[in-house]
Amino acid sequence: MPMDHSARTKEMIGNVDRALAGYLERGGHEKLIRAMRHYPEAGGKRMRPTMAILVAEAVGGRGKEALPFGCALELIHNFTLVHDDVIDKDPVRRGRPAVHIAFDEPTAIIAGDALFAIAFDVLATVEVDGERLRRLLRSVSNTVFLVAEGQQMDVDNEDRPTVAREEYLDMVEKKTAVLFACAAEGGAIIGGGTEEQVRAMREYARLLGIGFQIWDDVLGLKGDAKRVGKPVGSDIRNGKRTLIVVDALERLEGDGRRHILTDALGNADATDEQVRAAVRLLEDIGSIERARQFALDYARRAKELLSCLRPSEEREMLREMVDYAVGREL
Amino acid sequence: MPMDHSARTKEMIGNVDRALAGYLERGGHEKLIRAMRHYPEAGGKRMRPTMAILVAEAVGGRGKEALPFGCALELIHNFTLVHDDVIDKDPVRRGRPAVHIAFDEPTAIIAGDALFAIAFDVLATVEVDGERLRRLLRSVSNTVFLVAEGQQMDVDNEDRPTVAREEYLDMVEKKTAVLFACAAEGGAIIGGGTEEQVRAMREYARLLGIGFQIWDDVLGLKGDAKRVGKPVGSDIRNGKRTLIVVDALERLEGDGRRHILTDALGNADATDEQVRAAVRLLEDIGSIERARQFALDYARRAKELLSCLRPSEEREMLREMVDYAVGREL
Repeated sequence: MPMDHSARTKEMIGNVDRALAGYLERGGHEKLIRAMRHYPEAGGKRMRPTMAILVAEAVGGRGKEALPFGCALELIHNFTLVHDDVIDKDPVRRGRPAVHIAFDEPTAIIAGDALFAIAFDVLATVEVDGERLRRLLRSVSNTVFLVAEGQQMDVDNEDRPTVAREEYLDMVEKKTAVLFACAAEGGAIIGGGTEEQVRAMREYARLLGIGFQIWDDVLGLKGDAKRVGKPVGSDIRNGKRTLIVVDALERLEGDGRRHILTDALGNADATDEQVRAAVRLLEDIGSIERARQFALDYARRAKELLSCLRPSEEREMLREMVDYAVGREL
Repeated sequence: MPMDHSARTKEMIGNVDRALAGYLERGGHEKLIRAMRHYPEAGGKRMRPTMAILVAEAVGGRGKEALPFGCALELIHNFTLVHDDVIDKDPVRRGRPAVHIAFDEPTAIIAGDALFAIAFDVLATVEVDGERLRRLLRSVSNTVFLVAEGQQMDVDNEDRPTVAREEYLDMVEKKTAVLFACAAEGGAIIGGGTEEQVRAMREYARLLGIGFQIWDDVLGLKGDAKRVGKPVGSDIRNGKRTLIVVDALERLEGDGRRHILTDALGNADATDEQVRAAVRLLEDIGSIERARQFALDYARRAKELLSCLRPSEEREMLREMVDYAVGREL
């Protein structure tokens, strides 16, 4: 009978929340601090810090030592969300007004920069020797550079009629998966894992991250109203080149129904009926199901990599994290 | 007879330019890389890296070892310029279109973030022991947080009718002086200076930085057409609360001539004649001269702090750097 880890998960999230609040409770410009705290204090699943902590323990280290590192990545995650929302002009995040709406665009740009700065200040407090600190610093800074590349690819893709499958996967890897990979890699380094474990944990999280994003695309079309703040089908109206859309555009080449998708895709004025028709078409031709299977395949491969760890409660929780990332409710 | 250090300065700037080009010559998203290189490759005086290198040598270390650190700060300086120009909607920088004009706003926001990320990657290559690396990391990340605060104060000040003298100086310290202070402090740490030297060099650069900015405000009103890209008096039209304006608004309280300043201040449609009249008034009541003297006083105090260094060519060059920062041509 599988153990119930929900109490443990809740405790870990509570620790992360408290640590984050502490890092963001600093003196200084009051409005800027409020803008910085706007997303982090709105909650979130804290997947990146939790992953770092669990991996550190799973390789035989102390999870507590990975907490500041995990928090640094959570701050970076939030910094990218603040800037993403400015760039995409998204007015809502986690059911609250986006930072650039609750404050203004200049403040949102500056608050993102300030979160980024504090992340490195937190990183400097990780209690490891100099060489491991240097390694973590390089890993995190390179990761943020890749995230920036992914965000740029995402911006550029919006203006392109077609996007190849490989380009989509490259974008998702950079925009989403590398930060997970950095979390697991860093957790393994801090926990004193072997080089093989460091590599395997990085790959585990990379696969999980790609699956997570594709699953998110599926939820964007099939999820229910519980997913507050993002109406079903908004990706269609926004013209997002998700894997589902990329797949459908390929398959509908020369198909008389193609216009049902293209009428709604990237059309901010598309009616609800047009969007529903487009989603039905994506379903009928199997694009949604293929994306689901694709994500599940990534999840399966991620779990296989956990075999480099000794059996433990933490390993079990890392397995459950995959099931959450790829498989959470439709 | 004072030695001519121009050849040495030129060589140092050349080394910095080459190192920066190397750091920015990386594979990746071609357009993003071009946007990142837009400001750094447009040149600049490289004051922050030069200062770090000179201080490292002046305390008895090797300047070469401070080069990556100085370049990291130069990348950070350029990242803040990219975001500042987006925020202030400034279309021109160093005589070229700003990044958000040459590309677009989303690309400018992302390119700034990417420059910031690479700065920390470069910082990770500084060849010092773990504890000094940690100290540099904390200094740089805290500095960027303060720069963000200064930028936020600058943004907020635009909407306020009056700004106190202390608030202006606090803003200038954060927006401009702390990055210089970080450069000199880091150079002293890398060069193996004593704790007294580290503190004195930090204070030297802080004073220089404040003087530099006030001198810049003076040049903005009294400089000639050589200062490409920023027409004389644009600070008046933009409503900038410089020390000169803060001083004048205080002194003109109840003075019948006050409207000559307020008619032009923050009035984008002010005629050239209105702006010239405002500048003449600032001159007549002594506000410009007082700011000049104020900056020169900071310069004097900065130079005094150099007495903690043994006499050397580098100390002489640090003295000349003050004269350049506060005293460059009107």
